[in-house]
Amino acid sequence: MIEILKNKMTPESILTAGFGVEREGLRVTPQGKLALTPHPPIFGDKLENPYITTDFSESQVELVTPVFYSVDETYDFLEALTDIVIGEIGNNDELYWPYSMPCDIPDDEFIPIATYQGEAGKKARAYREKLMAKYGGKRQLISGIHYNFSFGDDFLTTIWQESDSNETYKEFKDRIYLKVLRNFLRYRWLIIYLMGCTPGLHSSYIKECLECMTDCGNDTRYKKGGISARNGSCSGYKNEIDLYPDYSSTKEFIRSINEFVKRGDISEAKELYAQIRLKPKDVRNVLESLENDGIQYLEIRTIDLNVFDKCGIAKVDLEFMNIFMLFLLLEGEEFFETWQQEALINEVAVAESGLEPDLELLDHRHWTLKTAWAEDILDKVAEVNEYLNLNQDACIAVMQQRVTNPETTYAHRLKVLMQEKGCLEANLELANNYKTQSDRDHYRLKGFENWEMSTQILIKEALTRGVKVTPVDAADNIVLLQKNGHKEYVKQATKTSVDTYITPLLMENKVVTKKILKEAGLPVPEGEEYFSFQEAKQKLPKYIGKKVVIKPKSTNFGLGICIFDQGGNLEELLEGARIAFEHDTTILIEDYISGLEYRFLTMGDEVVAVLHRRPANVVGDGVSTIQELIDEKNKHPYRGDGHTSPLKKIELDDQSIMFLKKQGLTNQSVPKKDEMIFLRGNSNISTGGDSIDFTEKMHPHFSEIALKAAKAFEAKFCGIDIIIEDCSDPNSAYGIIELNFNPMIVMHAFPYEGQERRLGYNILKTIGLIN
Amino acid sequence: MIEILKNKMTPESILTAGFGVEREGLRVTPQGKLALTPHPPIFGDKLENPYITTDFSESQVELVTPVFYSVDETYDFLEALTDIVIGEIGNNDELYWPYSMPCDIPDDEFIPIATYQGEAGKKARAYREKLMAKYGGKRQLISGIHYNFSFGDDFLTTIWQESDSNETYKEFKDRIYLKVLRNFLRYRWLIIYLMGCTPGLHSSYIKECLECMTDCGNDTRYKKGGISARNGSCSGYKNEIDLYPDYSSTKEFIRSINEFVKRGDISEAKELYAQIRLKPKDVRNVLESLENDGIQYLEIRTIDLNVFDKCGIAKVDLEFMNIFMLFLLLEGEEFFETWQQEALINEVAVAESGLEPDLELLDHRHWTLKTAWAEDILDKVAEVNEYLNLNQDACIAVMQQRVTNPETTYAHRLKVLMQEKGCLEANLELANNYKTQSDRDHYRLKGFENWEMSTQILIKEALTRGVKVTPVDAADNIVLLQKNGHKEYVKQATKTSVDTYITPLLMENKVVTKKILKEAGLPVPEGEEYFSFQEAKQKLPKYIGKKVVIKPKSTNFGLGICIFDQGGNLEELLEGARIAFEHDTTILIEDYISGLEYRFLTMGDEVVAVLHRRPANVVGDGVSTIQELIDEKNKHPYRGDGHTSPLKKIELDDQSIMFLKKQGLTNQSVPKKDEMIFLRGNSNISTGGDSIDFTEKMHPHFSEIALKAAKAFEAKFCGIDIIIEDCSDPNSAYGIIELNFNPMIVMHAFPYEGQERRLGYNILKTIGLIN
Repeated sequence: MIEILKNKMTPESILTAGFGVEREGLRVTPQGKLALTPHPPIFGDKLENPYITTDFSESQVELVTPVFYSVDETYDFLEALTDIVIGEIGNNDELYWPYSMPCDIPDDEFIPIATYQGEAGKKARAYREKLMAKYGGKRQLISGIHYNFSFGDDFLTTIWQESDSNETYKEFKDRIYLKVLRNFLRYRWLIIYLMGCTPGLHSSYIKECLECMTDCGNDTRYKKGGISARNGSCSGYKNEIDLYPDYSSTKEFIRSINEFVKRGDISEAKELYAQIRLKPKDVRNVLESLENDGIQYLEIRTIDLNVFDKCGIAKVDLEFMNIFMLFLLLEGEEFFETWQQEALINEVAVAESGLEPDLELLDHRHWTLKTAWAEDILDKVAEVNEYLNLNQDACIAVMQQRVTNPETTYAHRLKVLMQEKGCLEANLELANNYKTQSDRDHYRLKGFENWEMSTQILIKEALTRGVKVTPVDAADNIVLLQKNGHKEYVKQATKTSVDTYITPLLMENKVVTKKILKEAGLPVPEGEEYFSFQEAKQKLPKYIGKKVVIKPKSTNFGLGICIFDQGGNLEELLEGARIAFEHDTTILIEDYISGLEYRFLTMGDEVVAVLHRRPANVVGDGVSTIQELIDEKNKHPYRGDGHTSPLKKIELDDQSIMFLKKQGLTNQSVPKKDEMIFLRGNSNISTGGDSIDFTEKMHPHFSEIALKAAKAFEAKFCGIDIIIEDCSDPNSAYGIIELNFNPMIVMHAFPYEGQERRLGYNILKTIGLIN
Repeated sequence: MIEILKNKMTPESILTAGFGVEREGLRVTPQGKLALTPHPPIFGDKLENPYITTDFSESQVELVTPVFYSVDETYDFLEALTDIVIGEIGNNDELYWPYSMPCDIPDDEFIPIATYQGEAGKKARAYREKLMAKYGGKRQLISGIHYNFSFGDDFLTTIWQESDSNETYKEFKDRIYLKVLRNFLRYRWLIIYLMGCTPGLHSSYIKECLECMTDCGNDTRYKKGGISARNGSCSGYKNEIDLYPDYSSTKEFIRSINEFVKRGDISEAKELYAQIRLKPKDVRNVLESLENDGIQYLEIRTIDLNVFDKCGIAKVDLEFMNIFMLFLLLEGEEFFETWQQEALINEVAVAESGLEPDLELLDHRHWTLKTAWAEDILDKVAEVNEYLNLNQDACIAVMQQRVTNPETTYAHRLKVLMQEKGCLEANLELANNYKTQSDRDHYRLKGFENWEMSTQILIKEALTRGVKVTPVDAADNIVLLQKNGHKEYVKQATKTSVDTYITPLLMENKVVTKKILKEAGLPVPEGEEYFSFQEAKQKLPKYIGKKVVIKPKSTNFGLGICIFDQGGNLEELLEGARIAFEHDTTILIEDYISGLEYRFLTMGDEVVAVLHRRPANVVGDGVSTIQELIDEKNKHPYRGDGHTSPLKKIELDDQSIMFLKKQGLTNQSVPKKDEMIFLRGNSNISTGGDSIDFTEKMHPHFSEIALKAAKAFEAKFCGIDIIIEDCSDPNSAYGIIELNFNPMIVMHAFPYEGQERRLGYNILKTIGLIN
């Protein structure tokens, strides 16, 4: 088989497999007590949200990634979900417990079982109540990683086509997956050794489990040499007696499961707790679907949460699992009657005593030193890697290191931490670190960094609320959002199906825009274009004494603009026209409207945000120079390149230096305390301007005007720029300057001053994906 | 007043006035008999269509232009309406009678009075029945021009502001319009002389009228020296006794009209037939509105249809009317008791004997030679023109010519024609000429030639069906369409509000398009991109023996494409990739689909047209050279530059010569009879290709497929390109090549072969403006 891979496939396509990760974790109080609050309502119906749900307990948040075909994508998506959960529960002053074994938990009667809505919810609830009765609540709070794996289509079809066999594709696939499953059972002890991370327990856990462990104070017990309490005898889901299904074929497997149920060992197929499971197409009819459709993928439940990674599993471990699965397929098998029992013995031995240096395991009925055997297996993995040029040396080396140097295992490292600080403090410290990391980057969405920030905002909100997200084209920022059968393609966050084709086409034409606004009875500055100085000169007399602005048609940074806010005489107007013509071949003479410019953002029938942009500036403290004040201001976490950050760092370029010079200043001047020094004339965010939220400060009269303007174009998403003399006075003079059909949302979502606006929510509401 | 104009206004703004024209005309059979068919239903409800309606008779089509502020626009719009009517009634084998006096008409009981729908229609019908009873039907069939005139706002406000007067603007306007009205009454005889064009009658007209005329045979009578029977004693609408309202002020006018009604001289205000009317804002409450809102414009009813112009009025006459109205405003007045009677005497004298060389008229109670007086008036008009630099010398010169050389008057010219051919033949010949002109240019819409042809198609259909058309931006091809309160902005004919913002954005991305089509279960050619020859080389083995096309990513004129419709070996595929890389840095290897490419055009839920484009070609006749065949083919009326014509002339450029050379031909080769010689590889219409309608020939199965593709994008307007092996066989292989969100419609509307598709109708229906 390895020859087929070598000859017919590229290394990349060999490693292209389907990966999905489920990660559970408890919500805890800052003191490490189990949070007894309900699952945050923002995550919506637990049975509908495909990404964020609960497991057994109401307090046990489960993250589910879709299937991706690269480790990076899978990990990034998991990180995005993790950040979302940490952020949302953080708003409620809760932390995401990073450890597989429970935090400080109450007795069973106080452990909240997950609640659900509707008919399906009743069933889910009843199932959990049965589990509580049968296994107790504390075991059910144990969390872990479920790792779902399927070989790539190209991988499977290539091998199938190249093998001389009469098997159907389904038969072939079943055979492949069963072999991997059996080998995983045989070698699972190695994964427990490499990735196990449950060396100890908090003293609130089940008494019998604590009793067989060493007390290290701090309410913490640990087992000397223990690696994974979760995979040992104190584990969560474990059948009351050991069951060994027949994994020789799908048919035999189904037969043996039916036998267990008939005998009363388990009540239904899904109650068979195994370290690895055959997964069907239709999860509601497992056995039937396995028989009809064949095995779709494998689910591995062995891996503990890695407390040293925010996501509960390290990327290097995911990388290793990829090649390890390939190794399991290629590795030969030897059958003997008790192979499953032997594998179970090895599993428990490693889980409970994996760090004992001289631990021996049963290798085909012979006791073998664990370390030697582990090295042997990793050598074989390395051989596969080398033979197929898979370029996975790095992750294999990390695993080899964990074998030869047990101090580098997660279990050992955590044990040391717990001995020092206790289970609660050690894990709370980690949880707090992860929260700090998540908060710092809350305006970025992991895995979507190459998307526009506005689309990141939308996707993040969709993931949070369980709206299904399918990236369609990253370069074009097109995403497909789905919920309850409702489908919406969205481009650049606000280009959607709720706006019509004609609306943006009307708005992009400034002449047409003015016409339509005027027809709707809205004030726009009247203006006329002049194409030559001679022409302007002829018409200038009519502007004498009138409040006008003379400006080049395409204004850049306010250059060439003359404002006659008290009216000008002919001579002054002529000079204004002359200056404007220095900057453009066409000039505009427009009515002057005095006041500040505000951006109104409308979505549907609402003004969802109002903003004022202030030109780049610093405020004096009476001591620092302008340069120092700039440097200080640039430390704001939102300031960066302006593309991957909400705001732009202020740069003191030639234009700014000139601007300061006109005010008689240099970058070494020291402004007075509270004195605001402007560094440019224009207020663009892209040149270091400040965004200042005015949503609550704006008089509703003007929000009504903005809505009216948007409605004149039947626009659902619209940015309206209005100049207003006094935004708190409804009788104030104002004029509509411009309409924008693809309005920026980042500056409202993460303003420099004022409240952040959760616009992803408004977008989803406007396009009808949430209520 | 003239000094104000000279000092404060430009010549252009002085002549900027509001012009509206109404033109009536009878529908006649090819034999010149009154058409007894109903008003064409395509023109919709007569009371709703603002452009095309009926006057008294069902057979009397009335065209109404909106108000424009230039003569050119007014004339062009009138021509557009004229072309539409000639075209539509032409489809029913009827002609648009160009003459003011009736054609061959039946007795009153057979003259169809216009019928109407609804309550308002009942009133309109009842009014006409009353007219029939009071005046008889034949007089009511007389048609003419109603010329509506208003001074420009800038014109009026400038004079008002500059005059030292205490008048309100309304008082001022009323005074201005009343003065013009009075002077028009005084000088109207001149307009009758200059523009009169009813020298004779057909013998089917009223007996008493015929009796006082000379019989010139051909069933035609004329009056020696007569200019305008329509303005003489045989005219149409004329009160039973002469009435002289008081035109000294609006108030006095209203008082006098009320007096007439009280005395029973007329039954209501609108029954006062006058050569010129004061027009109010609210036409349903004339007197009340005149009193409250003042005079809005003047309606002049003096002008006969000019049979020598397709539109019934020449542009030069419209130009003269413009300056003539200005002259009437500037000219002084002398009042005496019988000035209105004197004016009426002059009117009748000129109408009935205007061509008599020695005719004398009453100028302020003194008999004066008509010719001398006319010259005198025109000299004054010329003075105004010169003093204000109005640049209207040309139209004034034409009028002077008509005075000094009466043979150049319309009346004389038509009389000569009628003497020679008779009233029927003379006018039918003209009507047929106009029909030929209209037909020749039926794909153009007068006045909208600078708009894209597709928008012209839409506007033409809208005008035809009485959908109100407001041009919004010609450069952007944006038009506002309105009917029954429903408003639609349309850009480039098919960019409308019925499509969503996201649909075109999805379609313009070819990768996304393929994804969505595939998801909808539609076949697209599978393909992969390769960015280097090395990369392609590595993957080529998998294409061995498969039907594929290797092509540069951006294909130009089919260059660099290799088709492996029987599959290729590795060597051949390598050569194909090499060739493709000569033309682009990225190549595509796609599944090969054999067959012809068809364009399906969908609107709403319908496939409205299907087309195949054939590369530029000629078909041999066994005698002509290729060059001669091309020249002959280029004579097709649709072939032109391809922008202002539906098809492009075939050009024999280097590429075509090369293409011929490969076939062993030159432009001097003589193809066999019926042999088709292709001149290029690509089928673009823009390089001389033929468009061939396949709407009826296409199997409905494929139209369903096209609709499904459009629906996958929720697209209302969509062009779908599908390659089909055999378009009559639903089981034929096919593949969707491309979707177009702004599909061309001209090639379907005016194909080279096959039926023309009336797509303006489909567009209006799709956007909900018609049913």
